[in-house]
Amino acid sequence: MERVAGHSDTEGRLRRLGDAVRAARKSQGLSQEALADAAGIDRSHMGKIERGERNVTLLNVIKIAAALDGSAADLLGKAGL
Amino acid sequence: MERVAGHSDTEGRLRRLGDAVRAARKSQGLSQEALADAAGIDRSHMGKIERGERNVTLLNVIKIAAALDGSAADLLGKAGL
Repeated sequence: MERVAGHSDTEGRLRRLGDAVRAARKSQGLSQEALADAAGIDRSHMGKIERGERNVTLLNVIKIAAALDGSAADLLGKAGL
Repeated sequence: MERVAGHSDTEGRLRRLGDAVRAARKSQGLSQEALADAAGIDRSHMGKIERGERNVTLLNVIKIAAALDGSAADLLGKAGL
């Protein structure tokens, strides 16, 4: 899992995913901690994903999407990715 | 970038992505090397992605999808993910 260094295009894409995760999470009334636990992802890592600070892996995107009752394709579609 | 150890569900998901990448690549008449170069991904890494042997990052999924003239959401949709 790479730390993201400062390329704006890269940051923008990851931020779009993070924003989509946050919006879907809030629409389901879930706390960030509850989503992290449901997805089986470390809580501090989930915070970094929501802030667009981590280049998340496909398997974690799938886990997050499943915890939000959706598919990874749907989640990326909502993020415009 | 994690090496994938042997969990079958994990392997199945990554293999579905790899199969979708290969199918889209062949439908465009691209060699694996040409796709790797177009996406800016190391050729041996691309081979591992197509074989489902690597937990690819979101940014690399986006790069591969763009090199195949599509979105990451579309590519994951084709993979059933």
